[in-house]
Amino acid sequence: MKIETRNCIGQGFSTGTGKTFQAVNPATNEFLSEKFYVASATDADAALQKADESYATFAALDWDKRALFLEEIAHQMEALGDDLLERASLETGLPIGRLAGERGRTTGQLRMFADYIRQGRWVEATIETAQPARTPLPKPDLRKMMQPLGPVIVFGSSNFPLAYSVAGGDTAAALAAGCPVVVKAHPAHPGTSALVAMAILKAAQLTHMPEGVFSLLYCNGFTIGEALVTHPKAAAVGFTGSLNGGRALFNLAAQRPNPIPVFAEMGSTNPVVLLPGALSENAKTIAAQYADSITLGVGQFCTNPGLLLGIKGPELTQFKEALAALLSAKLPETMLHKGISQAFNTKSSDMLAQPEVALLAQSDTHPATGAGRPMVATASGTAFKANPALHQEVFGPFSLLIECDDLEELKTCVSTLQGQLTGTLIGTDTEWEASKSLVQALTQKVGRVIFNGVPTGVEVCAAMQHGGPYPATTDARFTAVGVDAIKRFLRPVAFQNTPDALLPKALQNANPLQISRRINGAYTHNAL
Amino acid sequence: MKIETRNCIGQGFSTGTGKTFQAVNPATNEFLSEKFYVASATDADAALQKADESYATFAALDWDKRALFLEEIAHQMEALGDDLLERASLETGLPIGRLAGERGRTTGQLRMFADYIRQGRWVEATIETAQPARTPLPKPDLRKMMQPLGPVIVFGSSNFPLAYSVAGGDTAAALAAGCPVVVKAHPAHPGTSALVAMAILKAAQLTHMPEGVFSLLYCNGFTIGEALVTHPKAAAVGFTGSLNGGRALFNLAAQRPNPIPVFAEMGSTNPVVLLPGALSENAKTIAAQYADSITLGVGQFCTNPGLLLGIKGPELTQFKEALAALLSAKLPETMLHKGISQAFNTKSSDMLAQPEVALLAQSDTHPATGAGRPMVATASGTAFKANPALHQEVFGPFSLLIECDDLEELKTCVSTLQGQLTGTLIGTDTEWEASKSLVQALTQKVGRVIFNGVPTGVEVCAAMQHGGPYPATTDARFTAVGVDAIKRFLRPVAFQNTPDALLPKALQNANPLQISRRINGAYTHNAL
Repeated sequence: MKIETRNCIGQGFSTGTGKTFQAVNPATNEFLSEKFYVASATDADAALQKADESYATFAALDWDKRALFLEEIAHQMEALGDDLLERASLETGLPIGRLAGERGRTTGQLRMFADYIRQGRWVEATIETAQPARTPLPKPDLRKMMQPLGPVIVFGSSNFPLAYSVAGGDTAAALAAGCPVVVKAHPAHPGTSALVAMAILKAAQLTHMPEGVFSLLYCNGFTIGEALVTHPKAAAVGFTGSLNGGRALFNLAAQRPNPIPVFAEMGSTNPVVLLPGALSENAKTIAAQYADSITLGVGQFCTNPGLLLGIKGPELTQFKEALAALLSAKLPETMLHKGISQAFNTKSSDMLAQPEVALLAQSDTHPATGAGRPMVATASGTAFKANPALHQEVFGPFSLLIECDDLEELKTCVSTLQGQLTGTLIGTDTEWEASKSLVQALTQKVGRVIFNGVPTGVEVCAAMQHGGPYPATTDARFTAVGVDAIKRFLRPVAFQNTPDALLPKALQNANPLQISRRINGAYTHNAL
Repeated sequence: MKIETRNCIGQGFSTGTGKTFQAVNPATNEFLSEKFYVASATDADAALQKADESYATFAALDWDKRALFLEEIAHQMEALGDDLLERASLETGLPIGRLAGERGRTTGQLRMFADYIRQGRWVEATIETAQPARTPLPKPDLRKMMQPLGPVIVFGSSNFPLAYSVAGGDTAAALAAGCPVVVKAHPAHPGTSALVAMAILKAAQLTHMPEGVFSLLYCNGFTIGEALVTHPKAAAVGFTGSLNGGRALFNLAAQRPNPIPVFAEMGSTNPVVLLPGALSENAKTIAAQYADSITLGVGQFCTNPGLLLGIKGPELTQFKEALAALLSAKLPETMLHKGISQAFNTKSSDMLAQPEVALLAQSDTHPATGAGRPMVATASGTAFKANPALHQEVFGPFSLLIECDDLEELKTCVSTLQGQLTGTLIGTDTEWEASKSLVQALTQKVGRVIFNGVPTGVEVCAAMQHGGPYPATTDARFTAVGVDAIKRFLRPVAFQNTPDALLPKALQNANPLQISRRINGAYTHNAL
């Protein structure tokens, strides 16, 4: 399948700066043949101008038309067949099976948002009818609903080349909301990005979307990202990646003349609290769960359990021994790109070089270049409380086990945690009663609390919260996964004493869309 | 009634730095007798430490207990009787009648939030039940609800000494959400602030709230505001005031190691589009409405109509003449404080000094010191499009009428507007059909669109949106008025495979709170 190597500005193409870059196969460290054109500042401006021009039309489309667009994107992605998976595997080192699953998640998300916007709850239609006779002042007719924010900038992520990249969760949520999208492709998988962009552009044509509703730009540096985030027409930013990268974008957006929201999903160590009762009953099973979870996808999930907290004792010793044995037998696997594998090597070495940190176990197999060697280290609760370096994320198949003297020290360790995507508690029914304050303390730090499970595996559903206090994200008030992710790209607008014909359909008297609305405090599908 | 002049740190008192300041009666420019103690950095730290210590307990309280606290605050405010209104009038120059109305709005807001949190919709309880047999992976049980963010910093506003100050909308929303509150009193009305703080502290004692759930600090400079916003335990900020002040707080919060949200409601010119048909039918009535709206409360409402846009012609001439005559007869009145009246004089003079801006009319009465003289100026559409200075807000009884050559120029002027709290359209039924693109363009710029009315008068109800794109606010995604204002201080947390007894009541199987919940996509009051 031919891969487009030019930037896509709406339905047009640009060779931008004329400079090019190539993707690298992380398994072989060899360049792939296609040369992708680095976008110019003019391209960034043109993409956002086109996005802005399409905004009013796209925002005002009947929801069903936007839903059909999303469904057609899913269909066109599927129509790419194995070519998409093979290209993504070449560029990321991820196995075809995992990528097939990720494609299913991606198309599933697109269809989920299509269904969700058709239902109409997402606009939170609220009506308060007039009371002209009220004293001392009459009450006006007020009607409120959500409206799209405007053009959204999406940064493709390296660890989800499909589900959090060109047509991933951020793009799907923004398009569903009625926001045009400009994607900055992740430079590690430009070919995958190009294939998906073509699917989106084809879908846009087939479903008659306004020109400019989608653009894709390439850049192997920071220029284009900065140009997009600081552009006057940009209204919001979606990002999944490192703390440094996310914070840099947040800072740029906050320093704009008109600041815009940045939804950056960044680092997390996803702490796991291991209570002794559970270890006493199931040390080996839990160790097996965690040996798998720590190494799943070469540890490259944002919910990877990078921090385990237990209480010294024979149960923890048994768990450690089992985990060490299982982890030693795990094989190093290719990481997403050279930068990530180098960072993994550096950060895991730095962690092991910290005072009082000791290696517990690592894969018996020496890793090939670009592969991540699974490892687990240990440290005391005292060291963890005293040393901020032990709170840092090591992105990859790494976990640090903190051995606390007692439950009190464990609680103190939890209270010193930074914000996290997830927090997990492993315990028995009899242990929970005494652990309520621990549960509460952990809940304050995280977006999702998990009981007797692993944090990896993020269910895409309405009850999911994928987010958490800084530095897990830049905005804990929103989720990046599930239907509520659409809320990031909406703002409420109220209409006062508005003629019915000028109201959006969702707020008209007859309720032509037959949606649930909050009318004078009660939820109803009725017309007014 | 004795007025407490010390800072309130929870239920304790502090003389802080030992330095003091006094309120000034803006009508006489004389100092009021009480000397209020300027808080120290230690006070700010102590207030936030106490707030943080109370947070877990306060957040976990049964909603009914928090509701009783809010209701008791309203009751205690009412129990202050005329003393509160008289003090507020002395400190702000606002008439007793207006302040009585504002007190009613304030106690009404407290009771509205009490009712609202009891209903339980605000936690947006969402449950997806487990599917253990699902392939390829089982689906876990996931339950999500809103949780309070943590201690909230509230800055008292000058223009609403009751409704947006110590026990105002931000405080009521934050307490309702379960967030402890630290208020920085506005230095223009410290006595009013002290009285209301005593009402809150008495209510907190009577309803057995945890110590530290509320503190009040005084500062007549910027030191304490900065200390509060940059304090590690602060989780969010509410502010109503100037663009410079709001942006400074936003910048401080964005530069923190862990950025926190700032809800600053700032400047707005609240543009009003006057279509010729409406003026042709009702020029005099509309002129009368606007002469009143421009001068209401000495123009010191954030929704004051500071910008009128019309199309040259006999209808607009008739409107101008009527407005000029009515405005000339309006009387100057005392403004809130010296800083505001000085700024009004400077900014209105600066506006009149702009090229192509001409005075249309001003009050025939020369103002006393500290009073704001109502005035209206005019400029052409060409000047408005070319000169950003004409887009600036003049806070006070001032409005700038832009005379456009035709509808096209008027539309262009609208497209150049910055973000606004409100936008108003005055037209006839026959004019609307041709104005759809104008309505759409205005909607993109504002939080509330008003038809054939005035922007002043902000109904406190669920369908109100009081907010708007920057610079109207720092976060257009939220409202500062109405029940949805609670959303500013909440974040979602998901619980995965959680034992029923460890779940918050809102998510337990039996639905003990009997609230509406989204269960597997459908809304129901049923138990699981």
